[in-house]
Amino acid sequence: MSAETKRDTRSILDQNAFNFERSSGDDHLDSLIRQRRDLVGPTSMLFYDQPIEMVEGQGVWLFDGDGKRYLDAYNNVPVLGHCHPRVIDAVAQQMVRLNVHTRYLDEALHRYAEQLLGTLPLDSGRLVMTCTGSEANDLALRLARLHSGKQGVIVSAAAYHGNTAAVTEVSPSSMKQGQVPDFVVCIDLEPLNDESLDAAAYLDTQVANAIELLDERGFGCAALLIDTIFSSDGVYADPAGALAPAVRRVQHAGGLLIADEVQPGFGRTGSEFWGFARHGLMPDIVTFGKPMGNGYPVAGLAAPEALLAELSAQTGYFNTFGGSSVAVAAAQAVLDTLVEEELQANALSTGNELLSGLRGLCDEFPQLARVRGAGLFIGVDIVSADNQPDPLTCSRIINALRHRGVLIGAAGLYGNVLKIRPPLCFKPEHGHLLLEQLRQVLINDLGGVTS
Amino acid sequence: MSAETKRDTRSILDQNAFNFERSSGDDHLDSLIRQRRDLVGPTSMLFYDQPIEMVEGQGVWLFDGDGKRYLDAYNNVPVLGHCHPRVIDAVAQQMVRLNVHTRYLDEALHRYAEQLLGTLPLDSGRLVMTCTGSEANDLALRLARLHSGKQGVIVSAAAYHGNTAAVTEVSPSSMKQGQVPDFVVCIDLEPLNDESLDAAAYLDTQVANAIELLDERGFGCAALLIDTIFSSDGVYADPAGALAPAVRRVQHAGGLLIADEVQPGFGRTGSEFWGFARHGLMPDIVTFGKPMGNGYPVAGLAAPEALLAELSAQTGYFNTFGGSSVAVAAAQAVLDTLVEEELQANALSTGNELLSGLRGLCDEFPQLARVRGAGLFIGVDIVSADNQPDPLTCSRIINALRHRGVLIGAAGLYGNVLKIRPPLCFKPEHGHLLLEQLRQVLINDLGGVTS
Repeated sequence: MSAETKRDTRSILDQNAFNFERSSGDDHLDSLIRQRRDLVGPTSMLFYDQPIEMVEGQGVWLFDGDGKRYLDAYNNVPVLGHCHPRVIDAVAQQMVRLNVHTRYLDEALHRYAEQLLGTLPLDSGRLVMTCTGSEANDLALRLARLHSGKQGVIVSAAAYHGNTAAVTEVSPSSMKQGQVPDFVVCIDLEPLNDESLDAAAYLDTQVANAIELLDERGFGCAALLIDTIFSSDGVYADPAGALAPAVRRVQHAGGLLIADEVQPGFGRTGSEFWGFARHGLMPDIVTFGKPMGNGYPVAGLAAPEALLAELSAQTGYFNTFGGSSVAVAAAQAVLDTLVEEELQANALSTGNELLSGLRGLCDEFPQLARVRGAGLFIGVDIVSADNQPDPLTCSRIINALRHRGVLIGAAGLYGNVLKIRPPLCFKPEHGHLLLEQLRQVLINDLGGVTS
Repeated sequence: MSAETKRDTRSILDQNAFNFERSSGDDHLDSLIRQRRDLVGPTSMLFYDQPIEMVEGQGVWLFDGDGKRYLDAYNNVPVLGHCHPRVIDAVAQQMVRLNVHTRYLDEALHRYAEQLLGTLPLDSGRLVMTCTGSEANDLALRLARLHSGKQGVIVSAAAYHGNTAAVTEVSPSSMKQGQVPDFVVCIDLEPLNDESLDAAAYLDTQVANAIELLDERGFGCAALLIDTIFSSDGVYADPAGALAPAVRRVQHAGGLLIADEVQPGFGRTGSEFWGFARHGLMPDIVTFGKPMGNGYPVAGLAAPEALLAELSAQTGYFNTFGGSSVAVAAAQAVLDTLVEEELQANALSTGNELLSGLRGLCDEFPQLARVRGAGLFIGVDIVSADNQPDPLTCSRIINALRHRGVLIGAAGLYGNVLKIRPPLCFKPEHGHLLLEQLRQVLINDLGGVTS
């Protein structure tokens, strides 16, 4: 089956979405769903065949309006756990004192910048605070294009890098109709599932072809823009280091490596604090987002001084909310708590245990084809009896888990990958609960249907 | 003098910026400034010839590290006043309960959407929550281009609409080098200073020419994108209604009116809650930003259901932080408090008194050429002895006021406009203080230099 025929017409972003033309089977929920449709409208997306009205969160737990408890194995924004007191206190204390933009001096911003830049391998790195990861990637593309003098961008086949006009163009997973523009070339990661493949050589060849294509089309290669855990592609973590030759090739050709750390960053992949570090890469630009403020809107970008100076000579750049007093307080609390609670180490140990448990289920149940992941970022391929991507069964599993009180999501070019990406305070007992419920789903809830 | 010769090479955004090559004259500040330069770098901008380290805010007041008090007549983000307890309480209470994205159901989001949409004249309007005004304008451009099938955009000559790649293209005030792209046509507002001009006819003619030019260039006119108080152009408020024929012309030609309410919205202009309503306009899309959360990052866009459905058929759209539980709590508190504290009425009455006081100073001091404004959004043109735009004297006035404890900013195509835009809890006594200090500056601090 080709990518074209296997993909349905929804964007990958809409996988696991509630169908607004159906009933949730619950009057109260149906009333909320009508409000949503009539007030927020077509861009609104709700999770699950029966959407959930959440009312409370605590650590790895979410609670709905009926008091039902859900194990959150999906939300990566509350990286420290839902409603973490350290962040709440930091935000509350700063809110009563001051909340202004960065056109006034603020030592706290400098302290945070110094600490964050200290974790990065950039020469003369500078931190630009933005409000969202989309803004960070949008700015990163501008910097890369200005510096390289080229326009083309290489991304993964089901990449997602945000919601602005510019980053939507390099986000094939957002497309429901049509293709990415000609200045974007996508690399298919699925062949990496073949363990006999020389992954580094494959990626290098793909990138070489992409550069050649972009040159032929007259765009040149401005950047390789990657989320090194390949979240929306369905989590491609291994082999660590496989990206290195491809990245060197891009950089040798005058393109930049933009490491989008919105997904893998801040310790999630366990062995390293940053996703690019797992692959031994030297990025030119690093972007940050979702987990940076544990839910308070904070994001940013680190780049060498020279790149920012080039932009600054052309246009002004100011971000009203980026780096404001409260945003910095939230981000600092997150960084401090990640270290104090040793959450990166927990991501590694709990993640390894969960990976191992999922691999056990894989051996037991034919619907689970393979497990990929690093730390607390895991993808599980769901396949049909004839070993084809099976988005329908994937969706059934996710919805059955939801009804059993476990929240995960879907990913992958074909929508057939279970995406497991919990807060980093997820402990082995939470992993056991997830595994047990998944086993129950596979035994009891699929009604013998595999495709 | 032509616009070319009168403008210096800095972007309009950089007006009133500290020059990083100078000393602030204070060792502690110089040390903070070095940190800023070395950690945040070239895109960083600090206000005033001696930047301020702010440590506290309360209502219309800000306090620096030495305990010096500043009357804030600049910051429009804290629309209710700095550190307003209602917003702090709402955010703090929601933070301990839950903070998740909009893929779960949340009645509070629907309640807010219903209330906000109820203030707008859109048919089948829907509210899309974003995180920043830049994201809202970026999305608005996508909607307008998709719906109209055209690419061209008409903006004011010194417009600013945000910081993404797409909105920077339609923000001439951000350009330091080069011009706006060919698909953007700018309208000069300066002729509106001539009171004998038929403003409505002038604007209509300008827009007609712009549409013709965009058609000739093959782009067509997708949108007229305006902030109806024309903040960065130097505040052009009058005559109210003058925009109506121009807008009708755009809409008749198949283009959309995008009303960027980031600056004039939420009651600031006094007589109406929205800037477009002062001009009696019927926008197709309305965008919101800065004041919407009193400092908590919240923004959004309202558009007819049909436009969002068109986008939604093409690409997915999701905004992680937009409409999250805490963002909605903050936005709701702002909307409620604006009503309860009657801040729109205060903007009108205090604004009128301040306008009148400034017009009195205008009669007295030749450097003050004219005063424009509506409610608590006021621009004052500063000119030389030969009646030319005088950015140098403008900058001197702003810096002298800063040293006297009053904060305002600069605006305008030539950087010669005092921009006065305080929190809406600004009262007549605060206006008197501003007027008195401005009088003192004009008498004592300019050293006889007028250009």
